[in-house]
Amino acid sequence: MTGVDRIVYRPGPGELAHTFGARLPVAHVRCGDVLEVFTQDCFGGLVRGPADLPSRVCRMPYLNPVSGPFFVEDAEPGDTLAVHIAAITPATDWGVSTTFPHFGALTSTLRTATLQPPLPERVWVYGIDQQARTVRFQATSSDHTVDLPLEPMIGTIGVAPAGFEARSTLVPDAHGGNLDTPQLRPGVTLFLGVNVHGAMLALGDGHARQGEGEACGAAVEIATVTTLLVEVVKGVTTPWPRLETDTSLMSVGCARPLEDAYRIAHHDLVGWTSTLTGLDTLDAYQLVSQAGRAPVGNVCDPNYTILAAVDKALLPAPADAYQDAHRRLRRLAAETR
Amino acid sequence: MTGVDRIVYRPGPGELAHTFGARLPVAHVRCGDVLEVFTQDCFGGLVRGPADLPSRVCRMPYLNPVSGPFFVEDAEPGDTLAVHIAAITPATDWGVSTTFPHFGALTSTLRTATLQPPLPERVWVYGIDQQARTVRFQATSSDHTVDLPLEPMIGTIGVAPAGFEARSTLVPDAHGGNLDTPQLRPGVTLFLGVNVHGAMLALGDGHARQGEGEACGAAVEIATVTTLLVEVVKGVTTPWPRLETDTSLMSVGCARPLEDAYRIAHHDLVGWTSTLTGLDTLDAYQLVSQAGRAPVGNVCDPNYTILAAVDKALLPAPADAYQDAHRRLRRLAAETR
Amino acid sequence: MTGVDRIVYRPGPGELAHTFGARLPVAHVRCGDVLEVFTQDCFGGLVRGPADLPSRVCRMPYLNPVSGPFFVEDAEPGDTLAVHIAAITPATDWGVSTTFPHFGALTSTLRTATLQPPLPERVWVYGIDQQARTVRFQATSSDHTVDLPLEPMIGTIGVAPAGFEARSTLVPDAHGGNLDTPQLRPGVTLFLGVNVHGAMLALGDGHARQGEGEACGAAVEIATVTTLLVEVVKGVTTPWPRLETDTSLMSVGCARPLEDAYRIAHHDLVGWTSTLTGLDTLDAYQLVSQAGRAPVGNVCDPNYTILAAVDKALLPAPADAYQDAHRRLRRLAAETR
Amino acid sequence: MTGVDRIVYRPGPGELAHTFGARLPVAHVRCGDVLEVFTQDCFGGLVRGPADLPSRVCRMPYLNPVSGPFFVEDAEPGDTLAVHIAAITPATDWGVSTTFPHFGALTSTLRTATLQPPLPERVWVYGIDQQARTVRFQATSSDHTVDLPLEPMIGTIGVAPAGFEARSTLVPDAHGGNLDTPQLRPGVTLFLGVNVHGAMLALGDGHARQGEGEACGAAVEIATVTTLLVEVVKGVTTPWPRLETDTSLMSVGCARPLEDAYRIAHHDLVGWTSTLTGLDTLDAYQLVSQAGRAPVGNVCDPNYTILAAVDKALLPAPADAYQDAHRRLRRLAAETR
Repeated sequence: MTGVDRIVYRPGPGELAHTFGARLPVAHVRCGDVLEVFTQDCFGGLVRGPADLPSRVCRMPYLNPVSGPFFVEDAEPGDTLAVHIAAITPATDWGVSTTFPHFGALTSTLRTATLQPPLPERVWVYGIDQQARTVRFQATSSDHTVDLPLEPMIGTIGVAPAGFEARSTLVPDAHGGNLDTPQLRPGVTLFLGVNVHGAMLALGDGHARQGEGEACGAAVEIATVTTLLVEVVKGVTTPWPRLETDTSLMSVGCARPLEDAYRIAHHDLVGWTSTLTGLDTLDAYQLVSQAGRAPVGNVCDPNYTILAAVDKALLPAPADAYQDAHRRLRRLAAETR
Repeated sequence: MTGVDRIVYRPGPGELAHTFGARLPVAHVRCGDVLEVFTQDCFGGLVRGPADLPSRVCRMPYLNPVSGPFFVEDAEPGDTLAVHIAAITPATDWGVSTTFPHFGALTSTLRTATLQPPLPERVWVYGIDQQARTVRFQATSSDHTVDLPLEPMIGTIGVAPAGFEARSTLVPDAHGGNLDTPQLRPGVTLFLGVNVHGAMLALGDGHARQGEGEACGAAVEIATVTTLLVEVVKGVTTPWPRLETDTSLMSVGCARPLEDAYRIAHHDLVGWTSTLTGLDTLDAYQLVSQAGRAPVGNVCDPNYTILAAVDKALLPAPADAYQDAHRRLRRLAAETR
Repeated sequence: MTGVDRIVYRPGPGELAHTFGARLPVAHVRCGDVLEVFTQDCFGGLVRGPADLPSRVCRMPYLNPVSGPFFVEDAEPGDTLAVHIAAITPATDWGVSTTFPHFGALTSTLRTATLQPPLPERVWVYGIDQQARTVRFQATSSDHTVDLPLEPMIGTIGVAPAGFEARSTLVPDAHGGNLDTPQLRPGVTLFLGVNVHGAMLALGDGHARQGEGEACGAAVEIATVTTLLVEVVKGVTTPWPRLETDTSLMSVGCARPLEDAYRIAHHDLVGWTSTLTGLDTLDAYQLVSQAGRAPVGNVCDPNYTILAAVDKALLPAPADAYQDAHRRLRRLAAETR
Repeated sequence: MTGVDRIVYRPGPGELAHTFGARLPVAHVRCGDVLEVFTQDCFGGLVRGPADLPSRVCRMPYLNPVSGPFFVEDAEPGDTLAVHIAAITPATDWGVSTTFPHFGALTSTLRTATLQPPLPERVWVYGIDQQARTVRFQATSSDHTVDLPLEPMIGTIGVAPAGFEARSTLVPDAHGGNLDTPQLRPGVTLFLGVNVHGAMLALGDGHARQGEGEACGAAVEIATVTTLLVEVVKGVTTPWPRLETDTSLMSVGCARPLEDAYRIAHHDLVGWTSTLTGLDTLDAYQLVSQAGRAPVGNVCDPNYTILAAVDKALLPAPADAYQDAHRRLRRLAAETR
C-alpha cells in the first residue's frame, strides 16, 4: 500500500450513472488512494425551490444519480472491498426535501397499491450552516423554524451486483446501493462483497441528515464532496454490506417485508461475530439479542433497510474484522487529511 | 401484418441468457411471425436423476436460463408487446423437481434468514406421457405413484426492464421474468410494456405442471419447444404484465410481501377494466371484489406472484383489450398451426 | 349417535355475539343433531340501501355479529369439532356490499396507515334470485348490470379460542372466526380444535358470494338460515382449521403478511397428508407443491386467509381423515334433509 | 388529586393473569396513588437454571403472567390513562434468557411456518449487580463473560382491550400488552386509551435489559417490584400507546408485517404532533421524517413493535401533551419517593 494518490473526480455532463452494474468505469483507484468525489443530490440538482415539484422537473429513471463507477485495482469476485468514509462536505448551503406522488412510508405506493389519490407534492428548502453544524427546518404552512443537527451521510453507495445484474440506483440490496441509513457517515468503514472484476464502486445521494426510516421518502438532500479511502481484502467474501466504526460492528439487511431486513442483518451479525470471536452460534445469538441495536435505515425504497449493531467492547478477543482494515484506513485517513 | 415467417431458434452453446436486459438479441422477429423456441429447463438440463443435487451440479448464477432475447421489430418504449403462446411441447419424456437449500416457501431462505440448517436436498424425477397428458409422481421414500395432469406452461418470460436495469432471470417483476404462474399456458396472450428499442423478449423455464405457489421452490421442470406469435400495440403502455384468454382478463402482480402482489394485480385489473368499459373506478372495484379470482403463482421467488382475474362476459361492452390483439393472434395461431 | 334432534335457533334481541370466547352458550347440541341457525348479515341488517353508509348506521364493535355460541356436548379441550355445512339459504332476496373508510385491500387502513383520506364510502344492493341461482350486480355510476352465480357461504364460523382469549368476530385465526373463504359452502366439513369445555361454536356473516380476497372489504352480505351437523372427534387435536369435501382436503392459514398464511396452510397440509398416508414429509411437500391449489380467502381482515388444497384421489390410501367424520356427517345430512 | 396512598400489591397463588380483559380487578387505584407491584418473570419464575428448559417446565398458556388488573377509579371508555413508571427494581440478583422452540426472530415459527426442526433450546443465566448496575452475560459454550448495563424495563403493560376482547398477555396491540420495548423504563409516562369501565391496568414481564428486537424471543427476564403512578385524562382518546419523557414524544405501533408497525407509529406521531402544535400534517410529516427516531421494540411477538420518537425541543409551542400529565406525575413521583 504505497504511493498514495489523491484522485479528485467531478462528473462531467452526461457522466452520472443510474445503475449499479452495466457501466464502464470513470476512473481507476488503488488501495490507499484518497478518492474525493463530487456527488449530485438525488434530484440531480433540479429541485431548488417550492415550485420545483420533482414529478415535474425530474424524469424517470433519471433520479438518484451516482458518481462512478470507480474501477478498484486488484478487486476480484470473492474479495471484499473496504471503503472508508473520511469526510462528507455539503457542496451547497442549502438542502431540499419533498414529498413525491405515491412514494414514501406514509402513503400508498406503486407496490402497496391502493385506489387513493397521492398525497400533495411539496418542497421544503433547508438552510445549512456548516459553522454551526445545523440544518434549518422551515415549515411551509406556518412560521415555525427549528435547527436540526447537521449530520452528513451518503445515501447511496455500492458496487456492481452479482449475476450480471444492473440495478437501479434507487434499490438497496446485497451490493449496497440506496441503503439510506444514517450510519453511512464519516468515520465508518463499509465492507462490500466484490462481484465483478474491479468492483465498480459508485456513490451519490448525500443527505445533510435524515430521520430513521426516511418516512416521507426523502432526506435533506444535498450535493456533496465526499472523501473515501479503499482497500481490497483478498479472498474474503461478504454476503451483505457490513459497517465498522471504532466501537461497533454492524450488518445491513435490505428486504421486504421489513422483518426480513431485520432477519438478514441479525443473521449476518450473529454469524460474523461468531466467526470473529469463536463464540458458538447460539451464544452469539444470545449476546446480540440482549446487547444489539437495530437502527432503521429506510422504509420507503424498493427494499427496506435495517442494521444490526453490536459494540466491539462486548465481544471476546480476537475480533479484528477483515484483517484490521478499518483501523488501517482510519489511520491513513487521519494522515492524509 | 403480412409475410408471416416461422422462426425456429435453438440456443447454441453459451447462448443462454441469465438476465433480462444487458444482452444482445439472438434473432429478429416481426409482428405475426411464428417463433418456435427451444427452452432449457431451470437447471440447464443438469439435474437428471436422484444423485444430481442441484446445489452440486448447478453453479450460481447459471440457473434458470432463458432463450433470447429476440428483437421485436417496431417495438419502442411506450408500446406494448403482445405475446401469444400457441403451444408448449415438452422436449423430453421426463421432468424433474427438487428441494434446494434455503429456497422455497416452507423453509427459511437467504432473506427470511434463520439460524436453522436447510431442509434435505432431494430430487424427484417425473415420467411424462404426452399421449395420456400425464406426469407421474413417484414418491422417493415409498412406492406411491400417482398421475397428475400434464399442463405445460412457461415459468419465465419477459422483456428488458426499464431504467437501464438488467435483472436476474430468477426475478419476476414489472418486465415479466420468472412469473411462475400456471396461467402462462397455451391459448393465452401476454401483454408486456416495452422498455427498450426492440423489446428484447426472452423465455425459458418450462413446467410440465406446478401447484399454486410452487411451494418447494421448483415445478416439474422441463425443456420445451414453445411456439409464440407476437404483435406490437403501438402507443399503449402497460405497467404490469397482463394476460388475456378467450374468456378472461388477468393482471399480474409481483412483490413482497404477498399482499402487495395481490394489491398490484387487483389495482391494475380495476383500472384496466374501468378504462376498457367505462365503469367508474368504484364500480369496477366492487365487481372485481365479488367476481374476481386471485390465482397464486409463486411464493418462493425474489418477488411473489399473484394474478387478479375476471371473466370478460361479466363486463359491459366494449371491452376489446389492446385493439383486439388477443383475438387476432389466436386466429393467426390457428391458421399457422 | 342416536336421537337426532333438529335444533332451530334464531337469536333474540341482544343475543348476537361479537366475540368468540367469553360468552355463555345460547343452546346445547349433541353429535348428530341438526342445527338450523338464523344468521344476521355483517352489518347487523342495518345497511339496506344506498343511503345506509355503514360508518353512519353501524357502531363499532357491533359489526359482524354471530349467532351462538352453541355448547357441544362431550367436546373437551384436545378434541376436534367436526362441523358439516348442510345448507345455506339466503334469508332475504337481496344482499348488500359496501366500501368502508380505511378498510379493504385497495386502500390504506388503520394498520397499513397512510396520511391519505379514505376512499369514498358507497353501497351496492344486489338482487338475489334463488330460482335462477344468481345475484345481480348493478353499477352505481352507470346502468351496467350483470348476473353472478349465487354461491352462498358462511364468512364467520369458529369456536372459543385457546388461552382464555376472547377475539372479535372480525378476526380469523386458529380458532376459525372471520375466515371469509368461499370454500365454507354447503357440502364441506370444517374441523376445528376444541379449546374449551363445550367448544362454543358460533357462526354468522353469510355471503351470497365473494371474490377471492374480498378486495373491497365486503362480500355480497346476507342474512341466512344455515343448517349444520356436528360431531366430536375425541382425543384428536387440530392446530388450524381444516376442511374436507368429497374430493379434497384443505388446511386454512390465517396471518399477516399473506405469505405466512400461505406457509401455515401448506405446512399444515403437508403434515396432515403425511400423517394420513404415510408419505414422508418431503414426499408430501413435493406432491403438494405440484398438485396443490392455494385459494385466497380474504386480504382485508385483521389476519389474511389462504387455503392449501389437495385432491384426495392423489393420495395413497389410507387417507380417512378424522375417523371418516366427513363421510358420516354427509350421509346423515342427506338422510335428515 | 388529594389523599395519595401507597398501594402495595403482591399477587397471591393463582392470582396472576394471562389475558388483558375478561379478568376481575385485584385492587382499586385512584389518580395520584402510588402503586407498587410485584411482577413475576415471563416464565412464572420456573426457569432458574440450564436444565429448566421452558418448553419442559412451562405450560401454555401459562406464560408471561401479569399482575392485576387494577381498577382505576374514574377511568371510562373515551378517556386516556396516564401511567408513570417511577421505578423498576429487580426482585432477584439473577435474570434468565432462553431460546424457545419455534419462537424468536431468527427461527421459523408457528406462523412463519417451515418444515425445519426448531433450533436447540438453551438457557442463559445472568447475574445482576444492582450496585454496579450491570447484568453479566456468561457464554454457555466458552468462558466468555461480559457485563452489560442494567437497564430495567417492563415488557408487558396494558389495559383491557376494546370490543369485549380478551387478549393473551403475549400479544402487543392498541391496548398495550406485550410491547417489549426498552423505552418502557423509569421516567416515562405511558398513555393508553381506556376501553372499559375502570381501565383494568395490568403489568408484568420485567427485563433487566433487552436488545432492540428481542431477537432470540426473550430478554434478560426478571421478577420486579415496579412503582407506578396513574392519572385519568378525561374525555381524551388515544388510539395507540404513546410515551412521553422529559424530552421526547413517542408513539407505539404494533403489527405485522414490521413496516405496518412503523406506519402506525409514524402516522400516529405525525397526527399527534400536528394536533399539539398546529403544524399542518405535511409539515409535521416532514419534520418527523428528518428528525424522527424509530427504535425497534420486538420482532418476535404475535405483533411486532416499533416506536416513532421526536424531541419535544424541536416542536413549536404549545406542545403540552395530555394536559401536562407527564410533568405532574413526574413531580409527584419525585415527592413520594
